[in-house]
Amino acid sequence: MIEHSIAVRVRYGETDQMGVVYHANYLLYFELARTELLRAAGVAYSDLEKKGLFLVVTEASCRYHAAAHYDELLQVSCRVAATGKARVRFEYGVHGPGGNLLTQGHTELATVDSGKRPVRMPEDLLRRLSP
Amino acid sequence: MIEHSIAVRVRYGETDQMGVVYHANYLLYFELARTELLRAAGVAYSDLEKKGLFLVVTEASCRYHAAAHYDELLQVSCRVAATGKARVRFEYGVHGPGGNLLTQGHTELATVDSGKRPVRMPEDLLRRLSP
Amino acid sequence: MIEHSIAVRVRYGETDQMGVVYHANYLLYFELARTELLRAAGVAYSDLEKKGLFLVVTEASCRYHAAAHYDELLQVSCRVAATGKARVRFEYGVHGPGGNLLTQGHTELATVDSGKRPVRMPEDLLRRLSP
Amino acid sequence: MIEHSIAVRVRYGETDQMGVVYHANYLLYFELARTELLRAAGVAYSDLEKKGLFLVVTEASCRYHAAAHYDELLQVSCRVAATGKARVRFEYGVHGPGGNLLTQGHTELATVDSGKRPVRMPEDLLRRLSP
Repeated sequence: MIEHSIAVRVRYGETDQMGVVYHANYLLYFELARTELLRAAGVAYSDLEKKGLFLVVTEASCRYHAAAHYDELLQVSCRVAATGKARVRFEYGVHGPGGNLLTQGHTELATVDSGKRPVRMPEDLLRRLSP
Repeated sequence: MIEHSIAVRVRYGETDQMGVVYHANYLLYFELARTELLRAAGVAYSDLEKKGLFLVVTEASCRYHAAAHYDELLQVSCRVAATGKARVRFEYGVHGPGGNLLTQGHTELATVDSGKRPVRMPEDLLRRLSP
Repeated sequence: MIEHSIAVRVRYGETDQMGVVYHANYLLYFELARTELLRAAGVAYSDLEKKGLFLVVTEASCRYHAAAHYDELLQVSCRVAATGKARVRFEYGVHGPGGNLLTQGHTELATVDSGKRPVRMPEDLLRRLSP
Repeated sequence: MIEHSIAVRVRYGETDQMGVVYHANYLLYFELARTELLRAAGVAYSDLEKKGLFLVVTEASCRYHAAAHYDELLQVSCRVAATGKARVRFEYGVHGPGGNLLTQGHTELATVDSGKRPVRMPEDLLRRLSP
């Protein structure tokens, strides 16, 4: 199963008045890592959409262990945890500048067409995600 | 020229680590007031889009006089300041719970079709905006 | 266990290019319902923070069954599912204008002080959440 | 006057149902460029806040010439346009992957202390901004 890691710097607008990253924003970080994992596997997600294939999030979860702060450079890792005929599960970890684990999570995505109907994942995409 | 005012409660995720509403979010408040001004004038903006007419923001400005805080109930007013053949200018004011002016701003919007080409504003819409 | 439901209208900026509400934004809707459940139970969350008590999200999950669209008036329900000495679990459901279930989820929150150290939930708050 | 340019990749959640970047998000891009201009000038904004100096946005404007799309790599430039005793004006330009100008804007920021009272800009900061 493939894995990929990116660096994400916390933006000011992503913090809240507790002085930490607002909890919903980790889902955005997850998506950034997922997009770059796909790109590293040779797939630009924007191209998939242009060809009429969409990956829609059907499940998401996050556990928050420690907070991230403004301007910190986070490491966001993403790995393919499972693939199905029309779905793929990704797992994520976010680490702080000191290497400590801040959050963990997963998303499950389904492949649908432009009419939002479930479709089989193309063989090529499947092969790239689980080589 | 018509005018409309709405109440908006500040959400937690709209604050930043300064403990106040993040400055970009006022543009969202402006849009909420604009949408409700249109609705009060008999126009659901979502219906315009379904008919292939889009209002795209071509200019926006905001002056920040005082800060809004989490959970405060703000008053956001919107008025049609000018209309053209294919554009409309809205002006906004945001007042805090005590009635003090927090921010002021404007947006200019252009009417375009689904291909993003400029189109004349429909007579009916123009009449509703500048009765 | 107490329960509360609110109406939330989908904002334009909450949609993405799939033409539906971006998945991370449901966590914001959950928080709105949670805040109003607390208010209905006699607790303004903003007052808790002023007194030095913070509720921090330690877990969140969401399952997406169907999409919400721009300008739709959603019903977001929230209920207290469990309480502990220093934590509370909320469960959520989001229903579309036609009454269909769009998303379900939960969050787990911990009570901490202004230094982000775990503290017991005040008796009064606990009683209001699980009467 | 100093100038700085950064690359910003458009995130999925930054688009709206028109299929383009939601207009308020350009203010976030402006801030990213401003932060990196400061860093390039030897100032980490997060350090300023730790020392009790805050730069608050008092004015912002944006003109939208053409749309940015998901996954595009934008160039966001920022320059110091004017400095005062307790304020600084930045001007911005956002260019698309093909080099075309998408948006232009400005922000005016004031220096305040942790109590949000206006304070003179420290000499060192002023020198770094207008060498």
